[in-house]
Parts: sequence; structure tokens; C-alpha cells
Amino acid sequence: MGEGVGVERVRNMDLTIPRLGPAKVHSPLRISTEADDHDSSFVPDDDRVLYDATLRGCQKCRAEEPESLPLSFERAGPRKFIYFDPSKTRVGIVTCGGLCPGINNVIRALVMELHYHYGVSRIHGFRFGFAGLVPEAGHDVLDLDPVVVKDIHHDGGTILGSSRGPQDPESMVDALDRMGISILFTIGGDGTLRGAQRIQEEISKRGLKISIIGIPKTIDNDVQLVKKTFGFETAFSIAIDAIRAAHVEAAGALHGIGMVKLMGRHSGYIAATAALAEPDVNCVLIPEVPFSLKGKKGLIPWLKDRLLTRGHAVIVVAEGAGQDLLLSDKESFDASGNVRLEDVGLYLKDRISQVLKSQQIEHSLKYIDPSYLIRSAPANPNDSLFCATLDLNAVHAGMSGCTGILVGLWHNVFTHVPLGEATSGRKLVDPKGELWRSVLETTGQPTSWT
Amino acid sequence: MGEGVGVERVRNMDLTIPRLGPAKVHSPLRISTEADDHDSSFVPDDDRVLYDATLRGCQKCRAEEPESLPLSFERAGPRKFIYFDPSKTRVGIVTCGGLCPGINNVIRALVMELHYHYGVSRIHGFRFGFAGLVPEAGHDVLDLDPVVVKDIHHDGGTILGSSRGPQDPESMVDALDRMGISILFTIGGDGTLRGAQRIQEEISKRGLKISIIGIPKTIDNDVQLVKKTFGFETAFSIAIDAIRAAHVEAAGALHGIGMVKLMGRHSGYIAATAALAEPDVNCVLIPEVPFSLKGKKGLIPWLKDRLLTRGHAVIVVAEGAGQDLLLSDKESFDASGNVRLEDVGLYLKDRISQVLKSQQIEHSLKYIDPSYLIRSAPANPNDSLFCATLDLNAVHAGMSGCTGILVGLWHNVFTHVPLGEATSGRKLVDPKGELWRSVLETTGQPTSWT
Amino acid sequence: MGEGVGVERVRNMDLTIPRLGPAKVHSPLRISTEADDHDSSFVPDDDRVLYDATLRGCQKCRAEEPESLPLSFERAGPRKFIYFDPSKTRVGIVTCGGLCPGINNVIRALVMELHYHYGVSRIHGFRFGFAGLVPEAGHDVLDLDPVVVKDIHHDGGTILGSSRGPQDPESMVDALDRMGISILFTIGGDGTLRGAQRIQEEISKRGLKISIIGIPKTIDNDVQLVKKTFGFETAFSIAIDAIRAAHVEAAGALHGIGMVKLMGRHSGYIAATAALAEPDVNCVLIPEVPFSLKGKKGLIPWLKDRLLTRGHAVIVVAEGAGQDLLLSDKESFDASGNVRLEDVGLYLKDRISQVLKSQQIEHSLKYIDPSYLIRSAPANPNDSLFCATLDLNAVHAGMSGCTGILVGLWHNVFTHVPLGEATSGRKLVDPKGELWRSVLETTGQPTSWT
Amino acid sequence: MGEGVGVERVRNMDLTIPRLGPAKVHSPLRISTEADDHDSSFVPDDDRVLYDATLRGCQKCRAEEPESLPLSFERAGPRKFIYFDPSKTRVGIVTCGGLCPGINNVIRALVMELHYHYGVSRIHGFRFGFAGLVPEAGHDVLDLDPVVVKDIHHDGGTILGSSRGPQDPESMVDALDRMGISILFTIGGDGTLRGAQRIQEEISKRGLKISIIGIPKTIDNDVQLVKKTFGFETAFSIAIDAIRAAHVEAAGALHGIGMVKLMGRHSGYIAATAALAEPDVNCVLIPEVPFSLKGKKGLIPWLKDRLLTRGHAVIVVAEGAGQDLLLSDKESFDASGNVRLEDVGLYLKDRISQVLKSQQIEHSLKYIDPSYLIRSAPANPNDSLFCATLDLNAVHAGMSGCTGILVGLWHNVFTHVPLGEATSGRKLVDPKGELWRSVLETTGQPTSWT
Repeated sequence: MGEGVGVERVRNMDLTIPRLGPAKVHSPLRISTEADDHDSSFVPDDDRVLYDATLRGCQKCRAEEPESLPLSFERAGPRKFIYFDPSKTRVGIVTCGGLCPGINNVIRALVMELHYHYGVSRIHGFRFGFAGLVPEAGHDVLDLDPVVVKDIHHDGGTILGSSRGPQDPESMVDALDRMGISILFTIGGDGTLRGAQRIQEEISKRGLKISIIGIPKTIDNDVQLVKKTFGFETAFSIAIDAIRAAHVEAAGALHGIGMVKLMGRHSGYIAATAALAEPDVNCVLIPEVPFSLKGKKGLIPWLKDRLLTRGHAVIVVAEGAGQDLLLSDKESFDASGNVRLEDVGLYLKDRISQVLKSQQIEHSLKYIDPSYLIRSAPANPNDSLFCATLDLNAVHAGMSGCTGILVGLWHNVFTHVPLGEATSGRKLVDPKGELWRSVLETTGQPTSWT
Repeated sequence: MGEGVGVERVRNMDLTIPRLGPAKVHSPLRISTEADDHDSSFVPDDDRVLYDATLRGCQKCRAEEPESLPLSFERAGPRKFIYFDPSKTRVGIVTCGGLCPGINNVIRALVMELHYHYGVSRIHGFRFGFAGLVPEAGHDVLDLDPVVVKDIHHDGGTILGSSRGPQDPESMVDALDRMGISILFTIGGDGTLRGAQRIQEEISKRGLKISIIGIPKTIDNDVQLVKKTFGFETAFSIAIDAIRAAHVEAAGALHGIGMVKLMGRHSGYIAATAALAEPDVNCVLIPEVPFSLKGKKGLIPWLKDRLLTRGHAVIVVAEGAGQDLLLSDKESFDASGNVRLEDVGLYLKDRISQVLKSQQIEHSLKYIDPSYLIRSAPANPNDSLFCATLDLNAVHAGMSGCTGILVGLWHNVFTHVPLGEATSGRKLVDPKGELWRSVLETTGQPTSWT
Repeated sequence: MGEGVGVERVRNMDLTIPRLGPAKVHSPLRISTEADDHDSSFVPDDDRVLYDATLRGCQKCRAEEPESLPLSFERAGPRKFIYFDPSKTRVGIVTCGGLCPGINNVIRALVMELHYHYGVSRIHGFRFGFAGLVPEAGHDVLDLDPVVVKDIHHDGGTILGSSRGPQDPESMVDALDRMGISILFTIGGDGTLRGAQRIQEEISKRGLKISIIGIPKTIDNDVQLVKKTFGFETAFSIAIDAIRAAHVEAAGALHGIGMVKLMGRHSGYIAATAALAEPDVNCVLIPEVPFSLKGKKGLIPWLKDRLLTRGHAVIVVAEGAGQDLLLSDKESFDASGNVRLEDVGLYLKDRISQVLKSQQIEHSLKYIDPSYLIRSAPANPNDSLFCATLDLNAVHAGMSGCTGILVGLWHNVFTHVPLGEATSGRKLVDPKGELWRSVLETTGQPTSWT
Repeated sequence: MGEGVGVERVRNMDLTIPRLGPAKVHSPLRISTEADDHDSSFVPDDDRVLYDATLRGCQKCRAEEPESLPLSFERAGPRKFIYFDPSKTRVGIVTCGGLCPGINNVIRALVMELHYHYGVSRIHGFRFGFAGLVPEAGHDVLDLDPVVVKDIHHDGGTILGSSRGPQDPESMVDALDRMGISILFTIGGDGTLRGAQRIQEEISKRGLKISIIGIPKTIDNDVQLVKKTFGFETAFSIAIDAIRAAHVEAAGALHGIGMVKLMGRHSGYIAATAALAEPDVNCVLIPEVPFSLKGKKGLIPWLKDRLLTRGHAVIVVAEGAGQDLLLSDKESFDASGNVRLEDVGLYLKDRISQVLKSQQIEHSLKYIDPSYLIRSAPANPNDSLFCATLDLNAVHAGMSGCTGILVGLWHNVFTHVPLGEATSGRKLVDPKGELWRSVLETTGQPTSWT
């Protein structure tokens, strides 16, 4: 079951996939290994993946459930008939938002699949995010082919460049129309996917035949209805290095405290997962679980106790944790009423040191923020693999005439998810779910700070 | 759907989980974050995970299907009531077979969970595989506690030592009975799991109350009914280094050929997956897909063509690929009829060089076998994470009185799988499935060699 | 020739090595490979290493030079006769100051050499720096033997713990005397070596027979009369990761600037060396070379020019660079006259952004401070090798009765250097020397900023 | 002092550097940081580096030594006047022999220095070694400029390709003359340097003005008169991974033996150095130190003793060790008298297993040969740094009109060494020197096997 989206909410979603029109062109893919059965591996449009793969309580009850159509996603994959004629198809790719491991893998695999398997040779990379589509920014377009992208997956970042922020949908659709783009792949996070949806609405309003395919890029892994996004595993894997450094620093000093801030503005997946993967962490703070600093069950008394009994402590804090504390703590404002410390890591460092000093507990707090080192890294092998297969499905989706969707993953199967439903909320760590339960067991931290 | 096991075969399996007796002891776990709802996260025994999470064709048809009880696995997880009284429980751990990344993580997490969360303090590690249980070998037992295992996950291998081969089940059960073991965790592959099953049968025959919990360890990822086993991801990730080396060697010489042999005696998962993750591979050979060397569609003519047009080639071969060729090729026998080359990599190297030389094609073939470097590595962060959560579930299973099972993973949910059914066959790469289709698309190799 | 110490200054130094007394005990080392020539590898006390290994101008002139005794260091190495009787020797080890890769390697190799080759079995580790010697701190002593230290070189940090700051020499010598310590190895930087010297002076005053051997630990590589200190290579090697991240971030944004702050309070070796090893750096700022921010030849105009012509820039700044600017820049003080930004990286980030904004140049500046990740890392293989051989020589020095020295490296030969002379100044990057010349050539940055 | 070359032998060498003619062109380098003192950093032709930087015995004796001109090398570095006019200079680069980490760094830095600092823009890369110079092979030339080489240092191997074996010097000089090459940089090992010397002799015979500059590439670090060659450190650093794998395999089995074969056909530097850097090694076998298998002091009895007392053993063997054993051991020949096992690692594996089996000692021997993984790796940061500075000096040498030399390193200073003298012998590990003494101390292996 997906974390953070209740079955009830999903039940009210419309998971139908919009299409530009009937797919009548024979797919050029030759994907069967049997000469007499070439289409055995094509996926029919009505293949679906169940939302909930578990059975609860008495199975008979379920069998008698009135619901005749269980909640499910359309399955991604190559279609026997496609919508666009490859020889006449022109494709655009744009990367938006912050860096994330794997963007270049995604660009590479899109180009390779379009070029070698669908025979699409006109592929254009827009530079520096959505700004690359509008004339005001004046950015050149980068033509993409196998020679250009061959080795880019060895490097982090994006060869197209990126930028944050939306652009006027009308102006962007003007550009797509002017250039004769058939499919636009938008690689980006929450904001980008919303932007993609607005582009798709404008296209739909004009009755243009342009497919918009979202490839979700969120290092925080917080896109709802999607189990895993690329770059997430690389991110928490590299975060381990920072945790080990924090542990070494903490253990190397009297009452040493090592504190690592990890990405996670709204969702604590990276922090929680990294702490499970490197069990030297003694405490994880995430946005989904509130905490207090002082008071009998507060963080600082717990920390003090740990320092005096065990000698050192390692804390991992997601960047979005404790935002309520920062806003309510008078000391976090300066004389003019401006927030003095926006960074929860620096805030915690400040408050912990202050309290321990006031109690005359000698200590040494080292604060590590590895964010840029993480987001700029190349994808690790498993993320590379994931990007490669994700992209095949994104190309299949675009060529088959799907639009206004993103390519997701559910129960290890790639899916088509309507952009509107995917961006209608955010995936969060469930404080009662298995992930957080495992974190509590592994760290031994209190189940509640209040 | 799992690769390599047809729905029909699974339909005939008995996926019921044997138990030593009714679970009446309150679980000592405190796993809820809500004071008034302590057991919200315990998993009831009748929670299950669907075997097939996809819907095919018309959904209505499915609704009308006569099958009232869909195929499913029992879900793993902490039970509210457990069978063994922690204060009186004695646990054994044994590691068997070849090395695999993550064994020490598994040992560590078992000890930590038993010690800290269930309060079981008597944990014994048997040395050097099943041999450690029988008196003949004379191996000491290693007592395990948090201090001993704290840092072992940073190292590859197994602190317990391992060995191959079975031992007499009666003698092993004698030892378990003599020592008063309540739960035996056996960490090992196919052979070990069969051995565990024989131990369980002997226990059952004697009516002893000893739980046998298998933790599947197969670097090849070939245990059926289990989506993923620990160490597999680390393995194909490290294999990437060898592929890159092979590519550098191939590209640095005139008509350079880089060939990497990877693990995979019966199943080509490591080879196929590594090739997807590092797309410099031009050809993957796995046991599931036969190939010929010569003839119009044979490997060597294809290779020759690639060398002359592209200058170099990278080949990945699973150790179990082409075994039929070795056996049928007269030249692979020496004068006395003994197999001259058992290693498919050396065999291919030999044959390819011979043919290219005979055709006077200057070339340079570098053969890399990174097997020991791979299997002895420490687990990567994602495998560490996997081991950590897998183990929690193994302990829950053992404490709840399950026996004769292994802990598996299905649709990202941990499951209980009867040892007998899991070892009744082997998971294979489906030559018509999505994984192999992606390999064919990425490498551009022929779909068939005959 | 050593950077930063003129021949003239060295000429006035006294490089004679103090000894506790005549060495009369036969060395237990069996170091020859020839049965009949056991002592072929022992180093006589009067072996020396030339300070200057180059010849300048006409060689004849040199031959006629009046100086009959060229400047030189005493050579380290095993002595045939030693001062301490191993069976009666008790050794102390203390680690002080900030973390540095390789401390555990040093501890390990000291223990191994003392134990296995000299037969010294009483080795004590003082906890948390010099504080571990004085009774007030109340720290236990950690007994060290091969079992304890066997695997510690795989981890960063120090198993002994560390702390900054001096302690009263009298109190520390009381402790050494009370415990019957014969040799104290002090592993630390500038401050620690001065502290060691003060201990040695107190010992000398009291006429005690305790040898004080310094093992220079400075990640900045700034100990004069010593070519290289352990951890330095690991440090600049890991710094490369941050530089690559900065480059990826810079290249991935319009007018992207990646800025990395590296260690180097007084000496810019890490910054200069890392920039040579990873030539994506466009500008290096070190304490030894002053720079201005504005003005025709200032940093910001140069940066602006580079952004507009090349699109992005990577800057590496040593933590001690530009301290004069921070002190003289009014804007770096807040209303109360307190320094607002002590960190040169944050200061530069602030000022650059302000100026570019005021000139309406869209840009993106990412600032990376990898210091704790670097200093807590385990030693890389070459540093491990260096620690291993350095330590052999430290033990030889201590056992032979040398005192008040550190073990250095000069022209690839290990040397004995009096603590007083080594701490009388600091090694600096010579702005006219070969290292800086290479940095200027590689980065293409201006030779002067004023 | 350099290992393996006695002072006496060097005394008879002619270390004078040949030059094409007087250098009259002003160097375009602007290398001073002081406006009024531009040439302070140029190196005069008569700057030299002492061969022996140590003083032995009584210093006065040395002062009275009759030798007025101590043995020394010409110092490398930028000259104020150069021989070639950059605007009319055409440069060739060729890479020969086996792969070695850092070749691409060398190519990159040559191009960057020539292009940006000397203003030489016509730089040609010959493909696939010396074969690329002769018309018969028909290889195209690859034009090199900063855009082509910018990122190649991130990859192992050589973008030019390589091949083994000599070509006819006359034919090669014809090619150089025809193309108007002024300077040829030959990157290669022993054979290549000899080839370069033959080219230089042919050039000299014809009175051509072509400079031949050797850049020594030997992963074995066995070029005499040169302290360190590029790639060596990366090589032994990566070898550590194999040693750790061998140790994990050995420790994970009853009487486990891990054996690693490392490069080193004539010189055991990689094996010796790697064993010092990773002290889990129990025995190192190198070509310079003979060993016997059987007999009281033989390898196998020692190994058996270690297995029975310590449980496992790790052996590192250089590829050139024990060649005499292979040749004299009858069992290493097959029935027809052909050598059955040319590989010392396979030979040892075979013999050890045979003897232990015959003595009924259960054991497990894992043999690892990481050679291709090592030689194809990219240079580590310290080797990158080394390549960068080495290359600056190679370019300075070529532009100044030196010829028939290689660029070496001695006492951390770059030098010019005549090709003839450098290739007149080979640098070997001195069995009585400090390196081997440290290996013996660290491993605890016998000082002699006979």
C-alpha cells in the first residue's frame, strides 16, 4: 500500500488516462523473441495494476465486496499500435527544478529509445527549464542525438541546465506549436508537473495534438501515487557518508554530537531511510512527526541523557522538520522580527548548544549539510537501471498518444498516472506505517516527543 | 508478477504457513506512536499479499471470476501475540554457502532486534555452516550480543564463517535439542533452504517446539516466489566496475573485445540487470537464452560484424550461459575426453580468438572475472536497508511460532513462504518478459542467435 | 626545497637531536634478509638528509663553497642499539586537536610495531587529548594491544577521542611519572607539538627519563621542515568530490557559480592541490595570496566576466583566505560592531550575490563546505602506507632514546626534527614557487588581484 | 636514494641532456606573480638535483671527498628562452603498451599546456600506438584541442588507443618529417622508451629538428632513475580492494586462503606497497626475493602452519614472482613438454591445493586476479595531480629543444633523464632496503624462504 494516501482518497480519484486520439500506427518495435509471435510482449491499454495488493481480514468478505472494479492504475508499456508516426515526430525534453541524481540518465535513455527503437531523430533539448521555451530568455535549443548523449550518464546534473519557476503556459504552447513538437517530456518535481499540467490544458484548449509526458523527479520521493522516483536511492545512499562522518566526529569527542541535515521539505523519506541503512543514527527528526525541544519528553533532555550515559549521539534531521518550532520560538527571530535562522539544522545546533552550555555540559556539536554533494552526484547503478526502464515506458506512453500523465511505479510495475491526481497531494511518511516503525526500532528513539 | 513462475503452477501450491502452536504470549514490542492505540501496527495472521497485482483485459471478467480466494501470500510483520516467551528463548544463527554482500548485516539485525526489542539475550552463532551444528566438526559456538555485532555490517563476508554441503538432519536436530534452541535462523541459498526444510521435517517428526526460519541468501536472485534477495543489488552494482573496465579495455585497442563473466549459474539476473544499469554493454548471454557460436546468426559472426563497423565490443556472460555448447563442442574436450574448459568465459575467449585469428582479424580480447570481488563486498546502502527490514520480519516470524518458512518480499511487502514451495523450482529470467525486453532494446543485440 | 622556509632561516636553526642517554641495549629487531649480515639495515645516528637537494648555477662554485657542513636533518630509522629495555618499557599514546584521516592507522601501527617487533606490551591510550593525562578530567585510560587495534584503520576519527587546548605541563608530567611511562607519542598539530615541547622541557627540568615523540598531524600540511603530513592526501582527494559537485551545480544553472570552502587556516595547500588534481576549478583563493573584491582587477569583476563569456564558474577558497577583507569590510559587521560573517565562504557568497544582483545579472551560487566529511574519513591507501612507515620510524626514534622531536619526511626519507624548530614557524605556499605557478597555469586565473 | 641502482653504476652514466640547438625564442609563459620580476620562476639550464640527498658517516669526510661534481640530474621546468617558435610548432602524441591509470590525464594536460600557455594549436594524436605513425596500419590521426580533451581525465584508458610492439624507426621518422612534427611525446613503458630512443637516433642521423620527449608510463613503477611513475599509486590503491576481498573470503571459510595476483613482471613494487597499505596481508611474494614451495622453510609448510594456528591466510603474489619455480617444476609441464601453467597465481593455487589435500587439510583457496580492473581505472586524485605537473614539465622540455629524454621525478623535483640511461636497466625492490624491511615487519613473513 502506498504511504500517505488513504484508500478513500484514491477511490475518489479519476485514474483514467487521456489520449490524443486513436492509435493506428503500427509500432516499429520488434520486441518478441519468437519469430511467430511478434506481439506477445506488447501491453494492451486495459492492463491495469491494483492500487492495493494486500488482503485484509477474512478473504471471503473481500470476495463479497460490492466493489466490482477495484482501484487500479493503467499499466505502462509498449503498445502494438501507436499514435504518432515516428518519421514525422519531433520531440522536446526539458529539465526543471533542483538537481537530482539521474537526470542525465533520463535524457540519455529518452534519446536512445526514441532514436534507435522508434526511429525518431528530431529531438530537441530546451535549456534551463521552462525558461528555455519562452522567447524572452533567449536560450538556444540543444539538438540531441546518440553521439551527444552517449556518455552523459556518468555525470551528475543535467546537460540541459535547469531553472526554477513557472513560465506563461500560453507562451510555452506557442513555442511548442511553432516548433512542431509532438511530444514534450518534462522532467521535474511537484511544481514542474503542475506546470506540465497547465501546458497540457492550454494544448487541449487549442485542440493541438501535442503529448505532455511528465517524468517525476523528486529527490524527496514525495510524489503521491508513485512508489519510487529516480535519484532517491542514490540520495539516501550518499547521505550515509555524512552520517558516518557525523558518527566519527561524535565518537571522537567528549559528549560529541553529530548532526546531519538531509533533504525532505515535506516528507522525511531520505532521513528515515538513511537512518535504517546506517544504524549508527540515534534519532531521526522528520516533518511528519512533531517534536518539542524542552519539557520532560523533549529532544534536548533526551539528548542530554544519551550524552551522559552513552557518551555521544548522532541526529539526522530532515530540512522540513520542526518548522513549527522555528516559527513559534521567539529566540529564532532577531530584533527586527526577521527569522534569524531559517535552517532547522542551524536552529537546533544553536538551541542545543545554548541549553547544554547553560547546564555546564562540555560537548562538541558538528553540523553537516551534504545537500549539494548529494543532489549533484551521478545516479548509482540501481537508479541508473530504474531510469533506463522508466524512460522506455515514458517513450512508449508518448508515442502511443497518452498525454497529461506521468510515468509512475507501483508494485514494481510501471504505470500511467494523470498529472492532476498525482499533484493533488503529497506522499508522506506514515507515522504508524512500517517504515517509521522500523526507524523507531532501529534508533531506539522515543515514539513521541510530547 | 514474478518472473519465471506461472500462475498455474502457483495455483497448485500450498502457501499455508505451519505454526508450532497457538500464540498466547503478549508481544513485548511497543510499536505504536499513539498512547491510546498501542497495537495499531501489529499485523493480523490473516493479512495477505496478492500474488498477481495486475488486472488483465476487461475488469468485469475478473469480477465475475469464480475464484473467490485469489492467490496470495501470508503477510509478515509483528504479531500482537507471540508463541515463544522471550525470557526463555534461545536462538541459533547459521550461515551457509558462498559469500554474498549483506550476511553480516543480517546477523547484526537479527541480534539487535532479538536483544533490544524482544529481550532475547541468549543468541548463538554456529560456525562454518551446518558443519557447526554437528559434533564431528568440533567448531566452537560464537555467542552473539550487541557489542559483538555492532560494527560488523561495515565488512563483507560472514563473521560466523560458512561452508557448503549438507549435514545429517538427525545429528543437527540432536544438537538443537541438546542446546535448547527455540528458533534457528538459517541464512543460505537453495541448498541451505532445502537443508532447513529437512531439519524442520525431523523436528516435526520428533514433535519438538523448534522454529526454523529461512533467510534466503542468493546473490543470483533466483529464489522463486521471492521478488528480491539481499546482496543482489550490491552484486550487480559492483559488476558495473568490471563492465566499465571491459569497456575501457575494448575501446583502447584495435578491435578490442571486453568480456565480463558474472554470477548466475541458472538465472541471468545479475548479467541482465548490470547491462541495463551500464549501457556500454553490447551483448548479454544468460542461461535462459540459448545461443550458437557460428552460423549466420551466431555470436561470432555478429561480433565480427560489430568489430569491423564499430571498432570494439563489450560482452557480459552469466556463468551458466551456453553450458550446452561446452558439452557438445568437441574442441572443449581434451584428448582423454575430459572437459578442457569448464568456464564459459574462458571457453568463449578461446573460441572467439581462434575464429578471429583464422580470419586474420587483429583483435585484443580482455576477460574479466570479478566474482570474488563482488561476493565479498559489504552491502550497499539499499541492501543494508533491505537486510535491516527483512530481519525485523524474520524475528517476528520466529517469535510468533512460524516454522518451515522463509521470509520473502512481494510487491514491496514482506511475506511468509513455505520452504517446500520456495525450493520446488527456481526463478528464471523470462525471455519474453519486461526485463529481457529492456536488455534487448538497450544492447541492440539480436533477439535470437539461431 | 621545502616551500616557505628560506635557506637562511634554516641555517640558523639547531637541528641537533636531543637524546635521553647513550643507547646500549641491543635492538630486538631482526631486519636483515641475510643470515650473516643481520645489521645491514640499521641506520647509524650520523646518517643525515640534505636540506637542499638541488644544485644551482655553476656546480664548481658550490664545490668551492666554504660551508663544509651542509644543512641537513638526522635520518630516522632503526638503531642497532636502543635506549629503553623493551621488557621494562611502558608507552603512552595521546591524540589531540581536530580529526584528520589516518589517526587510527597511526595508533594501530604504533601498537603493532611496539608489540610485535620490540616486544613492548604495556601500551596505554590516553582519552580525549591532553585532558586524558590530568586527573581533573577523570578519563579512564584505554589499554592497547593488537586485538584492540587490529581493524581500527578501516574507520576515520580516533578511537582514543580527542580534544583541543593545552593542559598544565606539570600536571601532565606528574601523570607520566606516576604511571611510569617511558615514551609518550603525541599525535597532533601545531598546538599539540608545542604542548609536547613544554612537556619535554618539564621532563628535562626534572631529569626524568621519558621520551617525547611528536607525530605531526595537520590536515593543512603546514608543519615547516616536513614535506608531507598524513591525512593531507586523503583530504585533498575527498575535496575533489566537492569540487565536482560544485562544477555540476554551476554548469546546471544559468550563470551558475559553485564555491567550495576547503581547510587551510594559514596555508592554502589543500585548496591549491585539489584544484590541480581536478582542473574544473577556475579560481583558487588562499591565505598566502591577497585578493580584492572590487576594482578593475578584483574578484567580482573577473567573475562577472567569466559568467558572461563562459556561462559558469567554480571557485575554491581556503578558509583562511581574505581574512583582511572580512576585517576591513564595514558590511561584514552588524549594527553592534560584531563580525557578521566569520566564514570567508559565506562572506564571499554574500558579497558576490549582492553585487551581481545590483547589476541585474541572474545567477545561482551554490556554496559547499565539506570540511567535516573530509576530516572524518578513513585514510586512503597512500596515506595508510605513509602512516605505516612513519610509525615504524616513530617507534625506532622513541626506543632509541630520542626526545623532543617529531618524525618528519624530507626528500622521501624519514627524519628527526627538533620540536622547537618545527614549531618556530609555519609552512606556507610560496606564491612564486612551482605549486602556485602550476595552479595559475591550470586555472587561468589572474596572477594578481590588485 | 633510488632503489635498485647503485651509486657506482650511476657514476658511470652520462646524464647530459641533448638539445636540438640554442634556445633563442622568448618563452610566452607569464609565470611570475610580480609585475617587475617576470622571470623569477624560470629554471636555468644548469639547475640540477642531487642523485644522493643523504650524508653518510662523518660529514667532514664528505667535505673532503675528491669528487667536485656530485652526481645529479638536470632540473626540469620552464625555460626563459625556448627553441621552437610556438606559432610554427606542430606536436604529435602517441600512447603505447598496456593501459595504465592516468594516460588520458597526460594527454589532456599536454594539450591544455601547449594550447593555452605556449599557444601551440596544431596537436595531433596518433592512434593505436606506434602503429599509428606508419602508413601500413592506415589509422587516421585524431586532432586534439581543449574541447576534445576537456573531460577525458574522468575516464580510464586512452582516447588515442594503444598497441604493443615496435615499428620501423625509419618509417616512423618519415611520417614525422612528412607531417612537419616538431615535438613527439611518447607515452609508454620500457619498450616504448627504447622505441622513442631509436626514433631519436634516426632523427639525429638525418639532422632533423624534431624533439622526442618520453613520458614514462609503467604501472609497475620500474623505470630506473625515476622515483615514481603515474598510475602506480592508483594501481596499488585499487589493489587494496582485491586484498580486502581475499581477506574476507579467507576469514569466511575454514582454513581459508585468499590469494591475489598483482602486476609486477620484474619489480614487486605494487605487491609490496599494497601489502603495507592494507596490513591484512600475511605474505608477499615478489620477483626480487626467491622462494621455495616445499622444504623446512618453504612457502607451503609456512602456510600450513599459519592455517592451523590462525585459521586463515592472505597471500599477495606479483606476476613475475617464482618464475624459476614454474620453469623447474616438472609438474608444471604437460605431457608434450609445454608449460601447463604460465600464471604464477594459478600455479601456486594448483600446488598448494595439491599438497594440502594430500595432507588431508580441509581448506578453501580463492584466487583473485584484478589486473584489468586496475589498469583501466581512472587516475586517483594524487595521480591526477602528478600527471598535471609532470606534463607541464614535459611541455617545457619539448619547447626548450631537449630531445631523447624522459621527464622523471627525483626528491620531489622533476628532472630530465636521457632515454638511453633510463632504459639501460630496471628499478627493482631492494631486498635489504627500507620498503622490503617494512613489508617483512608488517606481514611477519619469514625473511627468507630457503
